[in-house]
Amino acid sequence: MDNSNALPISGPLDILRKVSPALERYTTEVLIGDVWRRPQLSARDRSILTLSVLIARNQSEQMPDYLDAALDQGVKPGEIAEMIAHLAFYSGWANAVAAAKVVQPVFERRGVQAGLLPPGDARLLPVNRPAEDRRHRVVKRKFGEVAPGLVQITQDVIFQDLWLRPDLSPRDRCLVTICSVIATAQTAQLAFYLNRAMDHGVSRAELSELMTHLAFYSGWSSVYTALAVAKEVFESRPD
Amino acid sequence: MDNSNALPISGPLDILRKVSPALERYTTEVLIGDVWRRPQLSARDRSILTLSVLIARNQSEQMPDYLDAALDQGVKPGEIAEMIAHLAFYSGWANAVAAAKVVQPVFERRGVQAGLLPPGDARLLPVNRPAEDRRHRVVKRKFGEVAPGLVQITQDVIFQDLWLRPDLSPRDRCLVTICSVIATAQTAQLAFYLNRAMDHGVSRAELSELMTHLAFYSGWSSVYTALAVAKEVFESRPD
Amino acid sequence: MDNSNALPISGPLDILRKVSPALERYTTEVLIGDVWRRPQLSARDRSILTLSVLIARNQSEQMPDYLDAALDQGVKPGEIAEMIAHLAFYSGWANAVAAAKVVQPVFERRGVQAGLLPPGDARLLPVNRPAEDRRHRVVKRKFGEVAPGLVQITQDVIFQDLWLRPDLSPRDRCLVTICSVIATAQTAQLAFYLNRAMDHGVSRAELSELMTHLAFYSGWSSVYTALAVAKEVFESRPD
Repeated sequence: MDNSNALPISGPLDILRKVSPALERYTTEVLIGDVWRRPQLSARDRSILTLSVLIARNQSEQMPDYLDAALDQGVKPGEIAEMIAHLAFYSGWANAVAAAKVVQPVFERRGVQAGLLPPGDARLLPVNRPAEDRRHRVVKRKFGEVAPGLVQITQDVIFQDLWLRPDLSPRDRCLVTICSVIATAQTAQLAFYLNRAMDHGVSRAELSELMTHLAFYSGWSSVYTALAVAKEVFESRPD
Repeated sequence: MDNSNALPISGPLDILRKVSPALERYTTEVLIGDVWRRPQLSARDRSILTLSVLIARNQSEQMPDYLDAALDQGVKPGEIAEMIAHLAFYSGWANAVAAAKVVQPVFERRGVQAGLLPPGDARLLPVNRPAEDRRHRVVKRKFGEVAPGLVQITQDVIFQDLWLRPDLSPRDRCLVTICSVIATAQTAQLAFYLNRAMDHGVSRAELSELMTHLAFYSGWSSVYTALAVAKEVFESRPD
Repeated sequence: MDNSNALPISGPLDILRKVSPALERYTTEVLIGDVWRRPQLSARDRSILTLSVLIARNQSEQMPDYLDAALDQGVKPGEIAEMIAHLAFYSGWANAVAAAKVVQPVFERRGVQAGLLPPGDARLLPVNRPAEDRRHRVVKRKFGEVAPGLVQITQDVIFQDLWLRPDLSPRDRCLVTICSVIATAQTAQLAFYLNRAMDHGVSRAELSELMTHLAFYSGWSSVYTALAVAKEVFESRPD
């Protein structure tokens, strides 16, 4: 459900025209006219990436235009609900609460009832026990003495609960997390989540295009820093 | 003065219920129901950590709920005044000015008069001369040629003035600074302030719990990056 | 055109007086009374640095006072228009759109017409072909396989278009970019732009003073991280 007519106008173009004609041109010709139409990622995926960056960088005021576009392009309200919860953990609680305040009137206007959203106690996906045990063992060996409480919460709440909630796919959670990590300059955490994304079937071409899209929303500098990590991850894997 | 009834509801729960039932559950069960009640740090300390992250990340709009909780839990108005000045230097002037704008009506509503706040020309604590001379010598050797003006201001204004203002303890200034450094991804500055905190009597258990608390407010990624530094600092010290 | 009377009052001083007398004193005595008057950079340059940090950190709400001061000190409306477009790429589209929304009423109040701003299709400065070919070759060798699309856009849109728009000088674009890189903790990108600035005639003394100014607006931690890079760059160059 990739509807080009619903491409988000990123910010009111008439304001850009009055303040920065250069930015108006780059917005219409490059960002909307080219980047959003590139076939390597769907407009639905691009909406998820864009919203993730806006939430992770606490730019929720810019969300409304993108939210409507996202819902028109097939992102489900339940997926947005789960992205907000997911990013509470990865980018900070206040970011998620600010996002919820912006999303609430949009959901109301579009008739999205709370009863249609994934319940708090959703039935979880099965855990991949060997992979999760391996992850926990590595983290516990590194940080079990430094922060035993946090290592336990990371296992119980993040990897055996949040990531297993079914209404945002593990593949999409990887994309959301990678966006958050890049947008908040947390380079040291990136390799883990790039590998996790590839383990969940995200292709190199998709990750490469994620970087291209994020250059516009998270900034060129953040993405070039991330490319160095992506290069190492890509070269380290046989697939 | 740890008053559990005054635990901050982090964001209006009824909005979370309508937008992200998952986030509502994590907020009530995990963040309020567990993290804020963990005994390793008092609710008063947790309020200082939380406010520090909000100011350092320019999320002052989320401050009012936390401010009232902080004042109810025993954080003094003068301590908040000093935190704002401290974070002007560590996270940027605009962050502090934005925070002041949010705090002003809260102080007014609660009858906090300017006359009760620490004066601009407060009588300073005595400087620890050998330690400060050592710090200045190291910094001057490294950066004295690159940025002589800044190295001088760092000595005169930061370490021989700001840090010696008596209405926020050196111990609390260490916590505030560590929160700012983690929340703004300034990993390279973290080891210095973790060591400084331990020199001022902050225990490993408290720093570990600071990391756990910050995972929720500054985001999981930022804290896992910080844990690697904390581990090195802990292992490098005999105490 | 360095008009000391137009020095920006950074935030309403009467609010600071009611909330943090310490911050009021540091603002009047240190920031306005000393830093903004230091001769190593003009007030015009300091305005460009300050606005760049505010846009890069999405603190546009603090912009109005600084904008009026900037225009009074000789920053041209067209330069502000170009800074916004430049920072869309370096710090993210949403930052630039938020800035445009704040600048628009200021331009309107001061009678700045869109027709006076640099057009979207401005006639470009000549490209420095050998330098640009060298840059592209290095980036293509490193990231051409990982992100071919982005490497191409970087050449076509950033270095053969944006940087060649004549209404913000290459020297000023270097300063703006360095501010964005420091303010968003993108340390890995800093050496490239410090070298680029020096290639465009920015002196060590000016870069050193940029760091001093940014300590106040981007925060002490971010600047000390940057100093380590500046030191390496300075020592690596014969000039």
